[in-house]
Amino acid sequence: MAFSVDDHGFMSRAIQLAKRGLYTTDPNPRVGCVIVNAGTIVGEGWHQVAGGAHAEVNALAAAGHRAEGATVYVSLEPCCHHGKTPPCTDALIAAKVERVVVAMQDPNPRVAGNGLQQLTNAGIVAEVGLLEIQVHELNPGFIQRMKTSRPYVRSKLAMSVDGRTAMADGESKWITSDSARLDVQRLRARSSAIVTGAGTVLADDPAMTVRLENTERQPDRIIIDTNLSTPTNAKILKQPGQTHILTCSDDESAIDQLTQAGARVVILPKVKNRVDLHAMMDYLNELEVNEVLLETGATLSGAMLEEKLIDEVIIYMAPVVMGDQARGLFSLPHLNSMTDKIELTLKSTRMLGNDIRLTYIPN
Amino acid sequence: MAFSVDDHGFMSRAIQLAKRGLYTTDPNPRVGCVIVNAGTIVGEGWHQVAGGAHAEVNALAAAGHRAEGATVYVSLEPCCHHGKTPPCTDALIAAKVERVVVAMQDPNPRVAGNGLQQLTNAGIVAEVGLLEIQVHELNPGFIQRMKTSRPYVRSKLAMSVDGRTAMADGESKWITSDSARLDVQRLRARSSAIVTGAGTVLADDPAMTVRLENTERQPDRIIIDTNLSTPTNAKILKQPGQTHILTCSDDESAIDQLTQAGARVVILPKVKNRVDLHAMMDYLNELEVNEVLLETGATLSGAMLEEKLIDEVIIYMAPVVMGDQARGLFSLPHLNSMTDKIELTLKSTRMLGNDIRLTYIPN
Repeated sequence: MAFSVDDHGFMSRAIQLAKRGLYTTDPNPRVGCVIVNAGTIVGEGWHQVAGGAHAEVNALAAAGHRAEGATVYVSLEPCCHHGKTPPCTDALIAAKVERVVVAMQDPNPRVAGNGLQQLTNAGIVAEVGLLEIQVHELNPGFIQRMKTSRPYVRSKLAMSVDGRTAMADGESKWITSDSARLDVQRLRARSSAIVTGAGTVLADDPAMTVRLENTERQPDRIIIDTNLSTPTNAKILKQPGQTHILTCSDDESAIDQLTQAGARVVILPKVKNRVDLHAMMDYLNELEVNEVLLETGATLSGAMLEEKLIDEVIIYMAPVVMGDQARGLFSLPHLNSMTDKIELTLKSTRMLGNDIRLTYIPN
Repeated sequence: MAFSVDDHGFMSRAIQLAKRGLYTTDPNPRVGCVIVNAGTIVGEGWHQVAGGAHAEVNALAAAGHRAEGATVYVSLEPCCHHGKTPPCTDALIAAKVERVVVAMQDPNPRVAGNGLQQLTNAGIVAEVGLLEIQVHELNPGFIQRMKTSRPYVRSKLAMSVDGRTAMADGESKWITSDSARLDVQRLRARSSAIVTGAGTVLADDPAMTVRLENTERQPDRIIIDTNLSTPTNAKILKQPGQTHILTCSDDESAIDQLTQAGARVVILPKVKNRVDLHAMMDYLNELEVNEVLLETGATLSGAMLEEKLIDEVIIYMAPVVMGDQARGLFSLPHLNSMTDKIELTLKSTRMLGNDIRLTYIPN
């Protein structure tokens, strides 16, 4: 299918609109929509919050009667099922649009091409596959979860030039610049959940919250705490939003106290002497978590990498040398030969103040 | 002094010509020259090899009688003393040029403004300070040596994403890509000397030579070998050019054997249980070494960094994770607190195949 230059321009606009929902649509995907009649945009919309109207419905409302005979550009296939809102396909058919261009098919098994089929059956020209890659990058978690029942995990690490995250005694504050920390805030804001370890909670007592202006939604906070060592007065338990503690301990008194402190404590199987990380992923999937930000020390990062559960490694590299007494990035005790080294692919690099951000995808 | 757009263009050309001597002028600086008469280039030249003609003389020979009344652009102040060749100022005055534009004053104390003064005294318009930074980057070693009697040291390191240079057992071959290794060859080719440690010689048995096409000059090879543990059959001793072994040992038999194997063995004071690195720098200065490439393991790199003897850190970062059992970048046993961390400034980043090259300047 060949798309015109105008098609590309209008779909770009739809994707731009979709991005406005980056911090808010969770657990839904970010979707944007542009309606064009006789070469002029007559309606725009985007999905803002789960339970609220879909992008197409918002755009149709803006277009009114001018939707008749128009072309609709939408970044994800319109839904054809009754979810929290009625099917968008019905609304498009009722509005008598002439053509619908879709960036990518909805990976949700309840849609998965059926939306396009319904439009075609109603005599609407339905085309798919324009700027699909951009839409994939906007919704990596939603797409992966729909296709494989597994959230998309980003491992965020801040290190020195010589690959160290903290001094030998654990001291680690302010390795990176303000710009890097702001960038981490943006990563948190788009995530459904932040995963950390009890070790990090004990060492740094972090809040693990989003502190950007104009963001209300807080990602769920997940603590992997095999032996229930999270203190009941930990900052992370006192923040808006939900904190989950995943443990292998059945210590009822500790569970009670942490529950009273606001945590949801969940007992998972123990594997390799810690919470089974695959069981954790299943739990996250049940929570409808799309994108996960992993903010932990070397032990848990190393274990997640070893279990092939990391989809993206984001490294903030500060222009300092911390020396070989300091702590490393990934604890990989079984990696002793070059043939076992873990290979990555560099996706992007970017300057952030005096730091560099490096994004890698494990091969 | 305000320079015209034409001035900038012709000086850029002179600097471009100077670069042709990047691998050959050692221990002299790289210098280029352009002669312009009535807006047209009438002669170009560059310094090719120490003992050969200077850039100005080559350009004047190309220009012939058209140098009369011309403007001469030269990337470094013309010499005014008898070295291996006669003073360039005499040649410029004899050729009756009208104006000489110089990128930077020669830091050589025997010139240092005297060349410009002689031209001015002869009635030639002499101007200085156009594109000086580029010339500085072309000759960082020559300039630093002339000003401070100390060569310019680049520390070259190849590491994984997690800051590791070798596995625990020393295995390290082929961390980086072909493009990165070619880049290292170019760094070697522009260096006056390559410094390594006996540990690296014993572990990897490297040749430490330039293997680029069309390069004849081999940098001197310097082994820091406190206890004379370099084997007499080491590859590094069998290469074209000179290998120096700097030691604290006075073991006459070992010195004899290594001397017979082609090395120049030099005994230096011992400080902190190893060859005094400042005495090494003095020795390199006596050898008229401009640019040094430090290719060593973590111990010597760490010691050089600690002694503030590194001017530039060049890191080739391969897209692999080697884990925390593997060896680190800089051994800094005394660095135990964040307040002692060593700060750097990022100078440049560049993709090389699948690797990234990061260039830092210690603060």
